[in-house]
Amino acid sequence: MIALAADVGGGHISCAIVEERSIVASQSFPADKAAGLRPLLPTVSNVFHRIADESGIALSDCAGLALSFCGLVNPLTGRILSTNAKYDDGPSIDLPAWCRESLGLELRIENDARMALLGEWYAGAGRGFNDLVMITLGTGIGGAAMIEGRLLRGKHFQAGCLGGHLTASYLGRTCTCGAIGCVEAEASEWALREICAALPDIGRSSLAREPRITFEGLFRHAAAGDELALRIRERCLTVWAAGAVSLIHAYDPEMVLFGGGVMQSAEVILPFMQSYMDRHAWTPWGRVKARTAHLGNEAALLGAIPLLSQEGA
Amino acid sequence: MIALAADVGGGHISCAIVEERSIVASQSFPADKAAGLRPLLPTVSNVFHRIADESGIALSDCAGLALSFCGLVNPLTGRILSTNAKYDDGPSIDLPAWCRESLGLELRIENDARMALLGEWYAGAGRGFNDLVMITLGTGIGGAAMIEGRLLRGKHFQAGCLGGHLTASYLGRTCTCGAIGCVEAEASEWALREICAALPDIGRSSLAREPRITFEGLFRHAAAGDELALRIRERCLTVWAAGAVSLIHAYDPEMVLFGGGVMQSAEVILPFMQSYMDRHAWTPWGRVKARTAHLGNEAALLGAIPLLSQEGA
Repeated sequence: MIALAADVGGGHISCAIVEERSIVASQSFPADKAAGLRPLLPTVSNVFHRIADESGIALSDCAGLALSFCGLVNPLTGRILSTNAKYDDGPSIDLPAWCRESLGLELRIENDARMALLGEWYAGAGRGFNDLVMITLGTGIGGAAMIEGRLLRGKHFQAGCLGGHLTASYLGRTCTCGAIGCVEAEASEWALREICAALPDIGRSSLAREPRITFEGLFRHAAAGDELALRIRERCLTVWAAGAVSLIHAYDPEMVLFGGGVMQSAEVILPFMQSYMDRHAWTPWGRVKARTAHLGNEAALLGAIPLLSQEGA
Repeated sequence: MIALAADVGGGHISCAIVEERSIVASQSFPADKAAGLRPLLPTVSNVFHRIADESGIALSDCAGLALSFCGLVNPLTGRILSTNAKYDDGPSIDLPAWCRESLGLELRIENDARMALLGEWYAGAGRGFNDLVMITLGTGIGGAAMIEGRLLRGKHFQAGCLGGHLTASYLGRTCTCGAIGCVEAEASEWALREICAALPDIGRSSLAREPRITFEGLFRHAAAGDELALRIRERCLTVWAAGAVSLIHAYDPEMVLFGGGVMQSAEVILPFMQSYMDRHAWTPWGRVKARTAHLGNEAALLGAIPLLSQEGA
C-alpha cells in the first residue's frame, strides 16, 4: 500500500509518500502558523505532485492522504476543530474537498500526537504491542493512548491527547490550558523558562549564560555538574514520571513511549522513568515498559498507512 | 428482562432480583472479607433461591447472575484477578461453575466501581449520556469511565477503575497503591484520618472530639464553623476537583458523577466541583456537567441488566 502523508506542525509542513513502513520520498518546508493554513494548501499539493513525479508514482495509485495536524480534529468529518493559535483558519477549511480537487484522493485527518503514536505502533518502538501510551516532551507536553489496538479518541476527540494536562501538583502553576499544576505547566520547556526566570539563585548557575533555556541546555549543564541544573532536571524527571504513573493508572498500557528532542538524553531519562514506574505504578499483572520513541519527526508520517487502512485507528 | 444481581462489598453482600430499572426483591447480609468468599457462596445461593421463591419468580426465567466485586476481575473468564485484602481466596474460585451448579444460570462479573457507573448510566444520574466518569468518595476513592457508550476496561482490566489513583501532588503522601500523592492518598477517608492525626493544632479543633474522623464528621464540623475542619474540607474539595479535571482530560466525558456517602453534603461539594471544572478543565466543545450519583448502594445492582445484555458493557 502506498499513500500520501502530510504533517502540519507549528513551524513546518512535511509532505511524504509512504509505502508500508518506509518513507519513499519527502519534502518539508517552513510554514507560518500565524498566517493560516489556507494560503499553504497550494504549496502542499504542488509538493505532492512534484515528489510523486520524481518518484515515478501516480497519485491515483495512492490510497489517500493522511493529514496529521497540531490541534484537535474530527476524524469523522475531516475537519479541524480547535487550533490554539496555530493555523486559526483551520476550522473554516473543507480539507476533504481540497484533497479531492487538488490531488484526486480521499483525506483522513488526525491529531499529530495520535498520529505519532500510530506510527510508533506500526513501524517503531511500539511494534507488537496494542496497549500504548505516548508522552512527547517538548515546548508543550503531548500525549496519545491506544487501548486494545485502537487509538483512544473520546466523544469530543480529546481523549488521550491531553495526557500532558493531567494534574501533577494541585497547588501548582497555572497552565495555558486552564488547569492548575498539570504536567505541562510544571515541566514543559515553556514552563521551564518561567520557572528558571523566577529562581532567585539562577544567576549563580551556568544555565544563566544560555541565551534561551531549553531542555537540551538543562540536561547539558546538569551533566556538567551545575547544581541548579541538576535540581531542576530532577524536578522535571519527577513530574514526568508522576505523569506517566497517572497515564498508566488511566489507560492500563503495556508500555509508555517517551518522545521529543530531549530523549537524546534517554540514558538519563529512561532509567529514571522505568525505576519510578516500577516503584509507583499499581500493576498487579506485571511491569509496564518505559521506552524511547524511535521515529522522531517521521512518526506522524508513518502513521499514514494504518490511519488510511483503519488498522489501529 | 429479569436477572439476579449480587454486590460483593468489603463488609456485606447484597443479593437482588432486578427487572429492567427496578429492584424486585433484595436481601443483604454482613460478610467477613478476611474469612474469604468461598464459605459465603452457599449463603448467596440460598438467599437467591429464597427471594425468588418469595417473589414467585423462577430462577430459570432470569437472564443470568451479574456479580459486582470489590477488586479487579476478568469479565471474559468470570474470574477474580486481584483482591487487595478483601476475599483473598477469590482468584482460586471458579465462579461461573458455582453459578451454573447452584443457580442453573450463566454468570457475568465486573468490578464494583464499573458496575455502579453502569447502573447510573442505565437507571440513574447518567441516563441519556454515553460518556461518563464516576468518582466514588469514601474510605478509598473509586472510579470508572464509559466512553462512547462502552465501559472502559483496558488490557489488564484496570483502565478507568484507578481514577482515584491519578496524581494530585507529585511530592505528596505515599498511597497503599504505591503511587505518590494520588487523589486517594491526599483526600480519601483513610488519608483524612492520617492527615488529621499528624496536625499539630488538631487538639484546638472540635474535630478532635470525634471518636473516629469521617467525611461526615469533617463536613459537620466545617458547617458549624470549625476553622480547622473548614481548612481540611477545602483541601479535600480541591484535591477531588483537581482529580476530576485529570479524569476529564483523560477520558473526554460529558459528565462527572460524584458518589459515596459524603455526597449527603452535595450542596457544598457539587457547586465547588462545577465551578472548578468550569474554570480549569480544557473543553473547547463546551462544559462538563458535575452531578451527584443517584442510586447509592443500589447502583451496582442496577448495572445487572446492561451487563448481562452487554449493552454499554
